[in-house]
Amino acid sequence: MRYVIQLSYDGTAYGGWQIQPNAVTVQEVLQAGIKRATGQEIIVTASGRTDAGVHAYGQICHFDADWRIPPERIADCINSFLPDDIKIVASGRASEDFDSNRSAKKKTYAYHAYLSSRIQPLKERYSARIKGKPLHVGLMQKAAETLCGEHDFKAFCASGSQVKTTVRTLYAVEVTEGFSLGCTDYTVRVTGNGFLYNMVRTIAGTVFAIGAGQRSLQDLQTALAEADRDKLGKTMPAKGLILESVDYGFPLFPNG
Amino acid sequence: MRYVIQLSYDGTAYGGWQIQPNAVTVQEVLQAGIKRATGQEIIVTASGRTDAGVHAYGQICHFDADWRIPPERIADCINSFLPDDIKIVASGRASEDFDSNRSAKKKTYAYHAYLSSRIQPLKERYSARIKGKPLHVGLMQKAAETLCGEHDFKAFCASGSQVKTTVRTLYAVEVTEGFSLGCTDYTVRVTGNGFLYNMVRTIAGTVFAIGAGQRSLQDLQTALAEADRDKLGKTMPAKGLILESVDYGFPLFPNG
Repeated sequence: MRYVIQLSYDGTAYGGWQIQPNAVTVQEVLQAGIKRATGQEIIVTASGRTDAGVHAYGQICHFDADWRIPPERIADCINSFLPDDIKIVASGRASEDFDSNRSAKKKTYAYHAYLSSRIQPLKERYSARIKGKPLHVGLMQKAAETLCGEHDFKAFCASGSQVKTTVRTLYAVEVTEGFSLGCTDYTVRVTGNGFLYNMVRTIAGTVFAIGAGQRSLQDLQTALAEADRDKLGKTMPAKGLILESVDYGFPLFPNG
Repeated sequence: MRYVIQLSYDGTAYGGWQIQPNAVTVQEVLQAGIKRATGQEIIVTASGRTDAGVHAYGQICHFDADWRIPPERIADCINSFLPDDIKIVASGRASEDFDSNRSAKKKTYAYHAYLSSRIQPLKERYSARIKGKPLHVGLMQKAAETLCGEHDFKAFCASGSQVKTTVRTLYAVEVTEGFSLGCTDYTVRVTGNGFLYNMVRTIAGTVFAIGAGQRSLQDLQTALAEADRDKLGKTMPAKGLILESVDYGFPLFPNG
């Protein structure tokens, strides 16, 4: 039987999703928790890898097992064996042909930053610090419009990654400004049919650079047209990034 | 010369503000940072102690020293010797009769909670979890109105604490509801002329209990009139509490 879970994690302490030799990873801790709960060695597949330090509210995973407990109960069973920074927030049954990676239609990531000349201890964990003058939100929203749609995002892709195509479609790019605990906060939220390695963090860095006047809208258009990395902003640090949701075109947990 | 600083901290890793034998405290780390920065043993006084696990955005402290660097620069100098979860966010000069504790006129604390049947890793650090049905915000706002003004808060005070009087004035009590990452968030924000030990956490627990229908507005009135602790809600955990600001009746950092 195939199970599907929504997994949330604070990525601060982990070397990303995927099991690797030199760091504790989310996949490793989750699979170890499942083993302690059930005695079984289960391989869990996620919608996609998240990098070291990246957070998730809505990571979606699947795995196969034959357990007697109702699928919506397995969240609580396994959670008893997981640390507080990794928890299953929903669980259910999936059809045999459901694949959390290949069946994904859209993903939404949010990138959070705050504006301050000094480190703000209560913001550092889940957002990146931007120094300097307030950003020009109108310009950032124009950049968001430019990014929307189908483009070759080759310039946004970390060099060395091997993918068939660097063309992706962004369905929505949203820039919002807020204020909390003495600082302005900026969020860049992107929904797309897929993302290249480091793409969201480079989109965020470029949007912020445009807001700061360090890059222009023309630079962004050139980067998209000519795959020119130098026209973009920097790749932002992992800690400001959250995988918010993965959309499969149907509700994964119709029973709650 | 007297210096005043605004100190922010993530209290998760610390045994509260005040130096004590069996835990690493915020005061200890701050004073150690000052010693590493200047070579001097300086005693720092805060507006008030915060308990183990409580956070601060706007803790205000003062100390005496004779340094040549401009007062507004000492934040950055000392910050180089502080961890990322404790930072000075503003610094300046204070008059010789300024006392961060005794001169304080008002303090504002915020208590954050989220509603979820399961632990949410991205909310756990700075808010407390509430289980069950959504809270009745209208009732909580009525409770907030009841709490406002001058009252004997004896029932809200942890037993065993020694204070001259348990009468305090609350200038504002605000209850707000929000929604983020799949859960409803509740904030209780209180501004008062002083707070008894555990008072804010018991106010928050009482407001939430009233919102959940476990306590009534009449219970709250009885508790205030008769100092009856049993009529109140529970004392909420430390991690949801943030000291937001301390008001001295004049700006502490007029030069930024």
